[in-house]
Amino acid sequence: MAYVNIQYETMKKFSNHVFSKFGFTDDESKIITDVLLMSDMFGIESHGVQRMVRYYNTIKNGRLHMDSKLEIIHETPISAVIDNNSGMGQLVGHYAMSKAIEKAKTSGVGFVSVRNSNHYGIAGYYAKMACDEGLIGISTTNSEAIMVPTYGRMAMLGSNPIAISMPAEPYDFLFDASTTVVTRGKVEVYNKKGEPLPEGWTLNAAGHNSTDAADILKNINEKNGGGILPLGGSTEKLGGHKGYGYGMIAEIFSSILSMGLTSNHTNIGSTGGTCHSFIAINPNLFGDPESIKAHFSSYLEELRQSPKADGQTRIYTHGEKEIEAYAVRLKEGIPVNENTIKEMKEICSEYEIDMESFLGKLDI
Amino acid sequence: MAYVNIQYETMKKFSNHVFSKFGFTDDESKIITDVLLMSDMFGIESHGVQRMVRYYNTIKNGRLHMDSKLEIIHETPISAVIDNNSGMGQLVGHYAMSKAIEKAKTSGVGFVSVRNSNHYGIAGYYAKMACDEGLIGISTTNSEAIMVPTYGRMAMLGSNPIAISMPAEPYDFLFDASTTVVTRGKVEVYNKKGEPLPEGWTLNAAGHNSTDAADILKNINEKNGGGILPLGGSTEKLGGHKGYGYGMIAEIFSSILSMGLTSNHTNIGSTGGTCHSFIAINPNLFGDPESIKAHFSSYLEELRQSPKADGQTRIYTHGEKEIEAYAVRLKEGIPVNENTIKEMKEICSEYEIDMESFLGKLDI
Repeated sequence: MAYVNIQYETMKKFSNHVFSKFGFTDDESKIITDVLLMSDMFGIESHGVQRMVRYYNTIKNGRLHMDSKLEIIHETPISAVIDNNSGMGQLVGHYAMSKAIEKAKTSGVGFVSVRNSNHYGIAGYYAKMACDEGLIGISTTNSEAIMVPTYGRMAMLGSNPIAISMPAEPYDFLFDASTTVVTRGKVEVYNKKGEPLPEGWTLNAAGHNSTDAADILKNINEKNGGGILPLGGSTEKLGGHKGYGYGMIAEIFSSILSMGLTSNHTNIGSTGGTCHSFIAINPNLFGDPESIKAHFSSYLEELRQSPKADGQTRIYTHGEKEIEAYAVRLKEGIPVNENTIKEMKEICSEYEIDMESFLGKLDI
Repeated sequence: MAYVNIQYETMKKFSNHVFSKFGFTDDESKIITDVLLMSDMFGIESHGVQRMVRYYNTIKNGRLHMDSKLEIIHETPISAVIDNNSGMGQLVGHYAMSKAIEKAKTSGVGFVSVRNSNHYGIAGYYAKMACDEGLIGISTTNSEAIMVPTYGRMAMLGSNPIAISMPAEPYDFLFDASTTVVTRGKVEVYNKKGEPLPEGWTLNAAGHNSTDAADILKNINEKNGGGILPLGGSTEKLGGHKGYGYGMIAEIFSSILSMGLTSNHTNIGSTGGTCHSFIAINPNLFGDPESIKAHFSSYLEELRQSPKADGQTRIYTHGEKEIEAYAVRLKEGIPVNENTIKEMKEICSEYEIDMESFLGKLDI
């Protein structure tokens, strides 16, 4: 698949403009763009601007209500429940984590659970928001059901990522991962390439291991059964029940505490209903934040410097690859694939946006 | 390996007596016994009374100080840091989770991080303590380094379990799992049987996949390199970096926030230094606890009732197997293996305990 590189600032202006054409205010468009571009800059193409068309589709299929206003259902000095009333995930995400951060600064902890939302981009964005303020940040979300519980054959949990970020030198710690073996995005990449999936990623409709990407994606979309395995695979031998358990943590924090829809009930027809959680923890609850940060940084350095397996040259700590990807993309631009460009052209055509005036003449 | 079944009440009296002979008070011995026997009753033999000899050894090798007193280093209405001053893990665990529960009842959340402790048994015991009070309970611990980070060949993290428990009907939710593929106990079982390990569990000293249980255990003990893989295996293809990430969460909550020793520095020579965390969250932070519990119970029932994979008859929710094991053992007794009986005999001989007067004449 062909790629073209687009500079960060160029893509930012374009994305801001597209989302404002969808009907978001300038400030809202900037938040949405910031979440999407952080994913691209971190090298996570699946959750970046290539999702523009999906948000467009979510407006069209009625899951995303452009005129909705979020509502605070319950609030204490250290917690809140918010109903997003089918609004945009990135907007409630930014609002809810800002609220969690405020509470953590004032009261030590902030834990906000959100219901009735839509896809909010990378969980790590929100965890990082807290980390940038010197706090420990945690975020989880549920999503359309794709994870099959151990010994099942029907997807009952989402990709259900858990992200956590904590200040450290020279890189902040940022761990952000789905609790499935892989995300649907990776299965889509194999499908586009027409290659068989690696063993251990997915189950077919009968609950057997499968390497047929097209069949898996069709079954997930049509709710025929099958889906993606929890981290640890299809049996307890390699710990599949553990990935299923981590997926449950994301579900508890996101959909259970907020009294929202669990993954198996979200994103069906015109029902969205995705749920999220946002937690900020002030390290001053435990002593001197600077000493804690120094202690953590020293351990992370020990990990990176520890002996490598034969044939390996580096051990990464979580967040390091993203920092490096960011630096490369800031210099060389964000690689955008030809399908994404094609989808952007269609959106621009509908909204009468002069794409070339933003992105130039693209050699693709 | 031969097993003999011993009734719960019988084993309780015996264990209380042994720990009091080690030098613990009656109340302390009861707490320690309660933690160990819950593991046995839940069917987790590795963390039950078979560990009696290990605690004995920890006293002998100087890692466990019988005369130590725990010390509160830092405290707020929602948090605390405790230095266990090389005391028994179960005792500080029970104390710290009780404190977290008290804080969660008064202030909504309690988060206690503990340093300079020793092995505390199953993490799930402490999570369940909070759940039994209607709260969400979370506990983590680090341990002697056995987990090799992705692309490494030296164990730098412990088995680092994360346990979480939350009230539900008809079974409370209780997820308790190491963040490694398996615990060291499982590798020990294969070693005792002289069977090769399943593929994907361990790495040898050079960082290559290995199935040689004896070699792995020797290398862990002698710090030669190698160890057990994070959940997800040795590469990023099946998500090994994710298991490594979950292990880091346990490390952050346990050893980083408490300014304690990270796993790679614990349990060396006469240094213990294990660290734990105990979190209790009051569901009333988010609304009506009974409604949240009913919502959760309904989702758990949907999971159990969802379609099974071909050849499978049940989908479990976390904690269900433990409840069933408990009922069986309450009726049939706790299966104790011949090696454990042998070790108990040696301990009884040293402390002049009449084992037969407690356990009867054992047919083993």
